Amino acid sequence: MKGAMLQIESTLQFVDITHNVDPQDIMGAAFVLRQALPYFPPRTVHLAVVDPGVGGENHPIAARINNAFFVGRDNGLLALLLDGKKPDEMVVLDKPEFWRTETLSKTFHGRDLFAPVAAHIASGCSLENIGTLKNELTRLHWAHPLTDDEGIEGFVIHIDHFGNCITNISAEHLSDYLGSRNSKCYVGSAIVKGIYPTYSSVADAEPVALVGSSGFLEIAVNGGNASELFTINKGSQVSLVFGDVDREISPNVTSDLTTN
Amino acid sequence: MKGAMLQIESTLQFVDITHNVDPQDIMGAAFVLRQALPYFPPRTVHLAVVDPGVGGENHPIAARINNAFFVGRDNGLLALLLDGKKPDEMVVLDKPEFWRTETLSKTFHGRDLFAPVAAHIASGCSLENIGTLKNELTRLHWAHPLTDDEGIEGFVIHIDHFGNCITNISAEHLSDYLGSRNSKCYVGSAIVKGIYPTYSSVADAEPVALVGSSGFLEIAVNGGNASELFTINKGSQVSLVFGDVDREISPNVTSDLTTN
Amino acid sequence: MKGAMLQIESTLQFVDITHNVDPQDIMGAAFVLRQALPYFPPRTVHLAVVDPGVGGENHPIAARINNAFFVGRDNGLLALLLDGKKPDEMVVLDKPEFWRTETLSKTFHGRDLFAPVAAHIASGCSLENIGTLKNELTRLHWAHPLTDDEGIEGFVIHIDHFGNCITNISAEHLSDYLGSRNSKCYVGSAIVKGIYPTYSSVADAEPVALVGSSGFLEIAVNGGNASELFTINKGSQVSLVFGDVDREISPNVTSDLTTN
Repeated sequence: MKGAMLQIESTLQFVDITHNVDPQDIMGAAFVLRQALPYFPPRTVHLAVVDPGVGGENHPIAARINNAFFVGRDNGLLALLLDGKKPDEMVVLDKPEFWRTETLSKTFHGRDLFAPVAAHIASGCSLENIGTLKNELTRLHWAHPLTDDEGIEGFVIHIDHFGNCITNISAEHLSDYLGSRNSKCYVGSAIVKGIYPTYSSVADAEPVALVGSSGFLEIAVNGGNASELFTINKGSQVSLVFGDVDREISPNVTSDLTTN
Repeated sequence: MKGAMLQIESTLQFVDITHNVDPQDIMGAAFVLRQALPYFPPRTVHLAVVDPGVGGENHPIAARINNAFFVGRDNGLLALLLDGKKPDEMVVLDKPEFWRTETLSKTFHGRDLFAPVAAHIASGCSLENIGTLKNELTRLHWAHPLTDDEGIEGFVIHIDHFGNCITNISAEHLSDYLGSRNSKCYVGSAIVKGIYPTYSSVADAEPVALVGSSGFLEIAVNGGNASELFTINKGSQVSLVFGDVDREISPNVTSDLTTN
Repeated sequence: MKGAMLQIESTLQFVDITHNVDPQDIMGAAFVLRQALPYFPPRTVHLAVVDPGVGGENHPIAARINNAFFVGRDNGLLALLLDGKKPDEMVVLDKPEFWRTETLSKTFHGRDLFAPVAAHIASGCSLENIGTLKNELTRLHWAHPLTDDEGIEGFVIHIDHFGNCITNISAEHLSDYLGSRNSKCYVGSAIVKGIYPTYSSVADAEPVALVGSSGFLEIAVNGGNASELFTINKGSQVSLVFGDVDREISPNVTSDLTTN
């Protein structure tokens, strides 16, 4: 893919953010990319292909968000990144003259479609030139948490090395819907009251909900492994209930191990 | 190695194709490099050192192939890449003034010989200047498949993540020797009739021979793992028999599991 | 971290020396960096953060050594690198105007403090400008071997893939203190006489002490695995006794398996 990009623009500078996203792990990729985005210079092109071989159903797209570019598939990754907002400009990549058409492989769209398009954008090609304008991202049920008057339903999108459980509920989402109210978070076998500024806001070995450096709500244990202690996995449901009222607990969401 | 190159030419741009070739796995390295070569800009210098420490018997060489450069050892890697053709220009690297002679280590020729030479070539030094002209690559029995009127004998040089078995028989070799005739491919416990354009040219769970994106003949199973199903390993013998005639089957090449 | 650096200076060129240092393994990092230092161009900035999250006790520092720069923590890494010498210039990094202060994270000083400072130095900012002058590295008992008239006491800082055991006793240390005298090296269950130029200076399967390509004293076995054969681990004590006199052997340093 880098070779294919250098053939188009020989002065590109590459930064490999990660090669450790599991095949098809769109949530994991979105989590990593969301953390990295604020730290790159203006007009950086973020090429994010989570695409085990063949294309699948989703359109290849390119988008501009603030002053950054994103190239990838409309498979939820960008939707997760944008957290309900619209990109400033978005196109479907439907112009083969910007691909390596002469060798368009059935098995490696990263190299033959996405990499060349990313290189053209990096070398100054405008989005409207490289594709056809598109207004809406595909809506994916899992890309956004569901919110009503009583709470927010989301899920765990990432477990880090310390066993901290990062959810798809963003800081912005919390400030828009929860505001300054109290809350209880139900996830795995844990019930965690309130949202605190740091891991050490609670006593040792106690669970804590906080907004981590990723900008997402995160369930952790001060000095411990939340994933192991509360049987929380990637994909586990997270229910944040607004206010102080106890929710009726359904057995498959919480266990009898209550921690508060 | 990168530091040693930057000391010679500070504006180099590096692309790491892979660091995952096993020690001494010349076939695996050749397979990876062959796939990457067409995707790099003109005058790219490909530095390919598969060299666990000390030099060994084979000459260090540099070669020009079309408009690309290759720096490494005459250990079969370039021979596999070239598939029987001659490089356009080739030299033995025998001029220590282009090495880090002041610190030429007994254990790291990559850093002290190959990297400096690659940097000199990348910065414009001609091959005839940097070494002594050499006409022939060392002939290695395993670098090329053997061909006669009845068929081609080769072997498996790579098993990919999907269990697809890539052989050392190239598309060019097939078109030169097999042409438009029918064929049967014997490998592991499989007998695979014909050569098809895609994996899905055959029914689900059926074996298929095709020329993959690598440009080599490949044995796969549509939706399955050919390596596991047919006990095919790196190094397994591959016999491609021309025409429709059944070959007498020797027990150590095929099993009674016939799949067609 | 790379993004944070490119925001400050977009023309930086990165070389990743290693990402395989274990958390908190300052000795391992120093070993790797010491090997790499001589091979980089003048004015290279070496960013070496061995820092699992939060800062800890040690000051963040930047230093100039010959014509190279070092950015990291005063945690022994630079002391090991310098082997008792002083840096040519050194500052404590105490000026937040060179950090990403607006987002200074409690958990990632690499990105928010060290990377921005390294980028500023790479783009030409002087050390005295970026911090406050500091004269002495923190003295750490393990960073230097102890030497008296009878010998040198050090320890093993790295076991390589071949089982060779690299110590913290440098070639310079040997020439300053041992000179041309004979020696015996006690480490694990081995007693190794003399210091030789190469692994093959001794017979097959025999232990050998030599100054390896790292510039440190190393205990190896010609064609064998010294770490396994003599129960030598990272951190094992190494006693180099000057002259030919046998030392009284304490049972916890050597076993009855004597090898000479």
